Amino acid sequence: MPEMGEFGLIERIRQRSRDQFGAVVGIGDDAAVLRPTAGCDIVATTDSLIPKRHFMPDWPAADVGYLAMQSNLSDLAAMGATPRWALLALTLPEYDRHWLDAFLDGFLEAAQPHAVGLVGGNLARGNLNVCTQLIGEVDQGRAVTRTGARPGDRLVVTGTPGDAAAALALGQRSPRGLTERLRRPTARMMAGAVLARQARAMIDLSDGLTADLGRLLTPPLGAELRLDQLPASPALERAINDPERRRELQLAGGSDYELLVVLPGDLDMNLVELSHQAGVSLTEIGRVTDSGRLIGLLSGQAPVEIAGRGWDHFRDE
Amino acid sequence: MPEMGEFGLIERIRQRSRDQFGAVVGIGDDAAVLRPTAGCDIVATTDSLIPKRHFMPDWPAADVGYLAMQSNLSDLAAMGATPRWALLALTLPEYDRHWLDAFLDGFLEAAQPHAVGLVGGNLARGNLNVCTQLIGEVDQGRAVTRTGARPGDRLVVTGTPGDAAAALALGQRSPRGLTERLRRPTARMMAGAVLARQARAMIDLSDGLTADLGRLLTPPLGAELRLDQLPASPALERAINDPERRRELQLAGGSDYELLVVLPGDLDMNLVELSHQAGVSLTEIGRVTDSGRLIGLLSGQAPVEIAGRGWDHFRDE
Repeated sequence: MPEMGEFGLIERIRQRSRDQFGAVVGIGDDAAVLRPTAGCDIVATTDSLIPKRHFMPDWPAADVGYLAMQSNLSDLAAMGATPRWALLALTLPEYDRHWLDAFLDGFLEAAQPHAVGLVGGNLARGNLNVCTQLIGEVDQGRAVTRTGARPGDRLVVTGTPGDAAAALALGQRSPRGLTERLRRPTARMMAGAVLARQARAMIDLSDGLTADLGRLLTPPLGAELRLDQLPASPALERAINDPERRRELQLAGGSDYELLVVLPGDLDMNLVELSHQAGVSLTEIGRVTDSGRLIGLLSGQAPVEIAGRGWDHFRDE
Repeated sequence: MPEMGEFGLIERIRQRSRDQFGAVVGIGDDAAVLRPTAGCDIVATTDSLIPKRHFMPDWPAADVGYLAMQSNLSDLAAMGATPRWALLALTLPEYDRHWLDAFLDGFLEAAQPHAVGLVGGNLARGNLNVCTQLIGEVDQGRAVTRTGARPGDRLVVTGTPGDAAAALALGQRSPRGLTERLRRPTARMMAGAVLARQARAMIDLSDGLTADLGRLLTPPLGAELRLDQLPASPALERAINDPERRRELQLAGGSDYELLVVLPGDLDMNLVELSHQAGVSLTEIGRVTDSGRLIGLLSGQAPVEIAGRGWDHFRDE
């Protein structure tokens, strides 16, 4: 019987979220009660997924659930925090238990490896809107913010940015490898935790490399990017032959959920060793400068100034 | 200039939320960083407001903002918790700074007396959806849940339930006093804090007295309600002459954000004195029984069984 009322749906969510991972009071009360670890700060984020903006109406509900959790996990990764508990405010056009079950399949699949408990939320009826909140922890005073970069610092990126943007640009023609990166991104939790020990600043690439880099650099800070060092996935190289177009997607495209990390210029580090600990490839792509500008370097060519701010949901229409 | 991009709106919200009330990291990073008080549990809730369901499209934006904060405050009041920080996930059909400013007028007006800082959130473009998260604190192990009622316990309600339901039922004909209670409810924070010291269980009346009472009473628990003791406001008495219709609204109507509190039957209490501390009238309206049923008592009449579960957003259509 796929149809049920609000309380039936809540009961369904409760049954499927049995493991509350240490919540004192979980689903089914006026609010969740959670016991923070002594000596920790709590780290809280929220992210909404809207149809046609963050996902397409024809996506499987499991992918929407998976993306909802990963996009929030990524915010905590960028603070160097450990995720612990989630709340889920779902606005649904109809009480469809099959949709809910498929959504939870993806949501809980993404939460489970990090022992994140779904401990509360809200259900309402209306236009589809998936609003997730995630609460995590970090040792007191050790959260990594967006501020702290200094001239001479190194810029390091995880994984291979540009794949999600290419999947968006290619639409139906996108190969599976790229589409998976758009629908089922992997928040870089381990990388965030490992790099937080050394990072001066960190951000996740949700709006695009150029736009998000700009948020780490308040004037007079600037940066030089070595454009031929931008790490591209084999799938991206196969799908987009033109290197310039590829770089464009890597610089401007959002939704990758890779991390951009600022490390001290004099840090004695072995990126291969760090990559091993982080569970993902790490690539040095440039340096912080005091020029106030964002400069792209290509071997054998004159430096170019990179403009553009990436993906502003409100500006782009 | 009323139009601006996403980042302009976020900057506007940041400027208007200057007082972060002790957040370690507030608006403008990947996540908020908050330092919990040692020895406290954190209490987290989320609530969404949807047009035509929780508010009407012609409401002033300030009323929507005010209601968004109060409905979340009320959840924390019902746990006996102290509110501290809010996150706001707004989905807006257009980037209208005037609407946002008016919304924030109400939102921050409701937050300010409780020193709640707006420390983060999310902006997206789409069908209007207001999703608020509130994080508070309570002494470890002292949160008041919905479970704990025992036969013989007293049922006490704050204020005057039924006003919001009457405003909804009367629509355009609703007098100002009732409409205000629907659009600008007052979460009973002080009452929650005062009563939490003695309460066995507590809930806020968002779905209606009967429905919410039912959530405090798992079988074999039941209750007797003294229907002629239900406290009605003068505005409600003037607007709804028929006492039976009035009681119906008081029992079934939601959105009042009053508290329903279960106190030990042998508690030596002076409701007048407690009301004074709580800053709101308190009325004993019945008792918990072991009958498994909800019985209404009216002086001079035979007891009647009260059915109905109140306001199920999903069932009612």
